[in-house]
Amino acid sequence: MTGSLSIAGLGPGDAALVTPEVSAALACATDVLGYAPYVARVPAREGVRLHPSDNRMELQRAGEALRLAAEGRDVVMVSSGDPGVFAMAAAVFEALESAPQWREVSIRVLPGITAMLAAAARAGAPLGHDFCAINLSDNLKPWPTIEKRLRLAAEADFAIAIYNPRSASRPDGFARALEILKEAGCGARTIIFAHAVTTPKERIEILSLQEARAEMVDMATLVIIGNSATRRVGRWVYAPRRAS
Amino acid sequence: MTGSLSIAGLGPGDAALVTPEVSAALACATDVLGYAPYVARVPAREGVRLHPSDNRMELQRAGEALRLAAEGRDVVMVSSGDPGVFAMAAAVFEALESAPQWREVSIRVLPGITAMLAAAARAGAPLGHDFCAINLSDNLKPWPTIEKRLRLAAEADFAIAIYNPRSASRPDGFARALEILKEAGCGARTIIFAHAVTTPKERIEILSLQEARAEMVDMATLVIIGNSATRRVGRWVYAPRRAS
Repeated sequence: MTGSLSIAGLGPGDAALVTPEVSAALACATDVLGYAPYVARVPAREGVRLHPSDNRMELQRAGEALRLAAEGRDVVMVSSGDPGVFAMAAAVFEALESAPQWREVSIRVLPGITAMLAAAARAGAPLGHDFCAINLSDNLKPWPTIEKRLRLAAEADFAIAIYNPRSASRPDGFARALEILKEAGCGARTIIFAHAVTTPKERIEILSLQEARAEMVDMATLVIIGNSATRRVGRWVYAPRRAS
Repeated sequence: MTGSLSIAGLGPGDAALVTPEVSAALACATDVLGYAPYVARVPAREGVRLHPSDNRMELQRAGEALRLAAEGRDVVMVSSGDPGVFAMAAAVFEALESAPQWREVSIRVLPGITAMLAAAARAGAPLGHDFCAINLSDNLKPWPTIEKRLRLAAEADFAIAIYNPRSASRPDGFARALEILKEAGCGARTIIFAHAVTTPKERIEILSLQEARAEMVDMATLVIIGNSATRRVGRWVYAPRRAS
């Protein structure tokens, strides 16, 4: 019995950003697993079993996907954005490491448009120069590690993409992140708030970091902080290719 | 006369990774501009004028695209990967800033699968935790800036994606980058060389940074260096979601 597991990225929301590779995998899947709002984005079709699950069930969901694939089913695990960026791919490999009986399952990772690329495209080209991506959730890492990375990212003059800036259970981290960046001399930098990017609720805000307030973001917001050379032209923001 | 300019990402090579949004823009373009090897990837069609150009002609190409759009043509500027990551979008906004007569041109940026996401997917999930992306070309920035960023990225324990690691005109930078990372204590880290990812010439190599040699890479190589917690399971490499 040879099943398969494809770990696929659905992109940020717009169906026009789902790659043909991912659409093809979904078209021949027997089972689709994922966080419920992402499974809800999969086109309905006869013959496919949908397995929506709650948030924070990543390892359990990963194990279930591997088990189904080992039974011979063609499984697609869906993530928003790219599955390899703060999403399900790492959880699947963690589950695989703890369960040698599944090592023979055929696995593929199918990339997707991650939120920072869609957000950057809407704003212009703020990631056109060296940049970093930081997940602000401290569910799985200590908060001091996040603070250290923010300070070093500022010192390196990276543009900074921030994923998961704020949730109901983590109301204070983003305010603290703004403070750290101001202390690091980034107050005059451009900050972009991309809310629900490429969905009907999309809203893009561009301001200076010192004008930003934590209440401006939630879990549907992708934040990009420009580097020190970032410029504006008309409604666009971009990082010049030439740096000092 | 209302033309348009779409700055579009073709992804890393495989046509199955071109988004439907980009395919739709190409299907109604009157003109396609870009570096010749990328223009060669655009499906042939009657009624479209192809304008391939040499490398390092970015600003001139950007100005030409804006001029054609201002004349009323529907122009697509193509980049490999994502147009906002070390590619043409920043050059277009630079050209726009220097040419106020084109400020009314309708511009869109259409994201694409950037090389590091495709490379990460092939290797597993090495970018599943915080990471940075550094362009190793010093054509447009001083080499000491690159060295500083590599040191700070190591100190921050970011996974590191390196674009443009080595070219005929820059034979020595990547060897120096490896030295810096070894000095920073990263010798035991996992390094991934993704050559020509998603093309028929694809080749993925995974080794430790101390085993890596500069001759292993060229301009078609995307390099990913894992963070200190990066693990291997079977043929896969991943960054655990949990960090200390």
